[in-house]
Amino acid sequence: MLDRQCMHVLQQQQQSQSQQKNQYGWHVEAPSSLMRTRNAIRNVLEALPSPQELASANGKSVIPLGQGDPAVFQYLKPPECAEQALIDVIRSKKYNGYSLSAGSEDCRRAVAEFHSKEFSTRLTVDDIIITVGCTQAIEFCIAALAAPGTNILLPRPGFPLYETMCSYMGVKARYYDLIPDRNWEIDLDMFEMLVDRNTVAMIICNPSNPCGAVYSYEHLSKVIAKAEHLKLPIIADEIYGHIAFKGQKFCPVASVAVDVPVLTVGGLSKRWMVPGWRLGWIIISDAYGIFAKGRVVEGLTKLAQLTVNTTSIVQAAAPAILKNTPDAFYENSNALLEEAAKLCCSRIQRIPGLDCPSKPQGSMFIMVKLNMTMFPELRDDIGFAYALATEESVIVLPGTAFGTPNWIRIIFAAQPSLLDQAWDRIESFCSRHRLK
Amino acid sequence: MLDRQCMHVLQQQQQSQSQQKNQYGWHVEAPSSLMRTRNAIRNVLEALPSPQELASANGKSVIPLGQGDPAVFQYLKPPECAEQALIDVIRSKKYNGYSLSAGSEDCRRAVAEFHSKEFSTRLTVDDIIITVGCTQAIEFCIAALAAPGTNILLPRPGFPLYETMCSYMGVKARYYDLIPDRNWEIDLDMFEMLVDRNTVAMIICNPSNPCGAVYSYEHLSKVIAKAEHLKLPIIADEIYGHIAFKGQKFCPVASVAVDVPVLTVGGLSKRWMVPGWRLGWIIISDAYGIFAKGRVVEGLTKLAQLTVNTTSIVQAAAPAILKNTPDAFYENSNALLEEAAKLCCSRIQRIPGLDCPSKPQGSMFIMVKLNMTMFPELRDDIGFAYALATEESVIVLPGTAFGTPNWIRIIFAAQPSLLDQAWDRIESFCSRHRLK
Repeated sequence: MLDRQCMHVLQQQQQSQSQQKNQYGWHVEAPSSLMRTRNAIRNVLEALPSPQELASANGKSVIPLGQGDPAVFQYLKPPECAEQALIDVIRSKKYNGYSLSAGSEDCRRAVAEFHSKEFSTRLTVDDIIITVGCTQAIEFCIAALAAPGTNILLPRPGFPLYETMCSYMGVKARYYDLIPDRNWEIDLDMFEMLVDRNTVAMIICNPSNPCGAVYSYEHLSKVIAKAEHLKLPIIADEIYGHIAFKGQKFCPVASVAVDVPVLTVGGLSKRWMVPGWRLGWIIISDAYGIFAKGRVVEGLTKLAQLTVNTTSIVQAAAPAILKNTPDAFYENSNALLEEAAKLCCSRIQRIPGLDCPSKPQGSMFIMVKLNMTMFPELRDDIGFAYALATEESVIVLPGTAFGTPNWIRIIFAAQPSLLDQAWDRIESFCSRHRLK
Repeated sequence: MLDRQCMHVLQQQQQSQSQQKNQYGWHVEAPSSLMRTRNAIRNVLEALPSPQELASANGKSVIPLGQGDPAVFQYLKPPECAEQALIDVIRSKKYNGYSLSAGSEDCRRAVAEFHSKEFSTRLTVDDIIITVGCTQAIEFCIAALAAPGTNILLPRPGFPLYETMCSYMGVKARYYDLIPDRNWEIDLDMFEMLVDRNTVAMIICNPSNPCGAVYSYEHLSKVIAKAEHLKLPIIADEIYGHIAFKGQKFCPVASVAVDVPVLTVGGLSKRWMVPGWRLGWIIISDAYGIFAKGRVVEGLTKLAQLTVNTTSIVQAAAPAILKNTPDAFYENSNALLEEAAKLCCSRIQRIPGLDCPSKPQGSMFIMVKLNMTMFPELRDDIGFAYALATEESVIVLPGTAFGTPNWIRIIFAAQPSLLDQAWDRIESFCSRHRLK
């Protein structure tokens, strides 16, 4: 604590100085490169009244179907072994210090072994970089591949953080479309038009946030053939990897893309239901040394050295979590999510003005199409989402945040009873605002 | 797990494709802005043989006095309440989800209350941003104040990460000297020469890494008067805050700098001995709204939104840790560190060719001056540190990493018995290499 005498002197000084205070002459200004960034999801969520304000305004408890956080519902729970693994690590008192910059060797080895089963090559510790959640993994991949002035191909609709990161780094975003009534498959006809000599990579998100699509092996093969033809390295965002419903097969991009270098990003957040633990990873698939030759691997290591890495205790717990989570846990989570997705689809069908042309095949999200001609007073998806929040305390994200106006995104990782309550409110909201 | 049939198809495809593999036409290259960065400490440590290699080469166990990580010695332990707070949080199952971008409100409020006691103003939640350790706090402060092409004043010797961060962001580092035989005080005569219209801030590290200095109220007042005169906002790195030995008073910069806007960075890492937990913070002191007007506060918020923040469970445990750590814990840690520092000083005095012109007054580090004319075959501090590692398995950091050749930095947060063992080896090493 600050010594009392010192504090006394400070207070005296403060009093005398406050008479001469002078802020003229200060030229403090945040960089424009920073100020032009925006996080579309956070912007939307933070523009809304707070949950307390909403509840007190309309008397209804908030149902937060906006942010992609399964943990808020306490419905899909982490595997039991996860909590125990973390407590064991803390009790051991051995993991309070820094890890290696790229992540602890044990953690990297565990991730390598876990994914070796499904990737078409044997992964080693050197192929893995641990990150502060998948967010930092995405940041590192863009930063290691793209210099200012280059461009990256992003999906539309897509997770807005890709664009936010690109904008901050001075990298241009170019968008390829996902086709809404063809299970949100990638529109491959656009690529030749989009790509130029400054295009350094494409990002694929599969299973898809925000669309809920799970791409078939055949579709992925076509996408990868196009990437190979255009010499486009792939950043594969597979944070929802394996969250695929019955009849769908999740194929990791790196297992299909034999001739294309791939950086796969993933983490514990969604499949193990602990997004707040912040453990992500990058898997480097570079069979022909294209990344190594371009010093991308070295660049990723440098980025890791800049940041000291994520909490050592979660890193230390990860090997046990990856090893001890039973298959039944994954199967159960997927079954509950599928049931929730079906509930949403059947409720949407009953509400005139809403539509879901492609049913979710996985992940935790459903995109709902709004026929805004039926809700003219709400104007657009932003008006729809804002009014729904203020009148019914149901938070959803407007499609505009994902580059697709007049859709909304809903997370369905919640209790069926809560989802039913949300849909009851949405149904009543729609019938109230629908053109008579 | 990947479906077996899918895997089989993949393997077949891989075999047929491997005959046509072709890496021509790929133009993948990591950005030069990234490739020019270097982390001096990590570079030095990683250039050394591994601990296993060292131990098997010379038969001596490694004594790691290089990295600033008190946890590796398991001597200065975290407060008991820290472990329990974390386990309680995990067991509550309430903190597995994302926190707010700037950090959970409870955590920010706890940091605000903890520092309100010693800062000269009442801090609120809005004055605090939680970060992934103090490293990210430093990164955010530089990124929010400095655009590419501007410059920042850094201490020499100083923590090399400042320069690494600046270099990555295209910000120029300019160095002010610390005076070795005047308790590493800041050489204020240099400032007029260093500052131009592109100088956007100065960084002060107090208590000092790597020097072990704790600046007096009088010295800090002079530094701050200079900053006020030159209109230089201050980034105050106080991660070693309150680690001050008997007779020294730690004064937070923000408590003295009434007329200068200050971003103070700190965290749990060093005072609570848990650097691997990765909980840091930024405290915004902006009495006259200079940061607010320059949109620096908004910029810090944007940076926080880019990254999703550090592990929620550590954030949730922080309020209990800050509240329940008894004063006796801090006093005991400081007493043990002071005893260790004294041990180092008395051992240095006995070794011809080594010197310590200013004894440590706090933090965990001592800078040892090498008289290289007495060790000509070792050439310089890098040669000294490298030979000491390979011959004696004692890891220390060469001063070159901190901008001060022919010094070495030693962390003394270790058991006296271990430090004695290290000094025995250093003594024998020096007598072996000293000019006869």
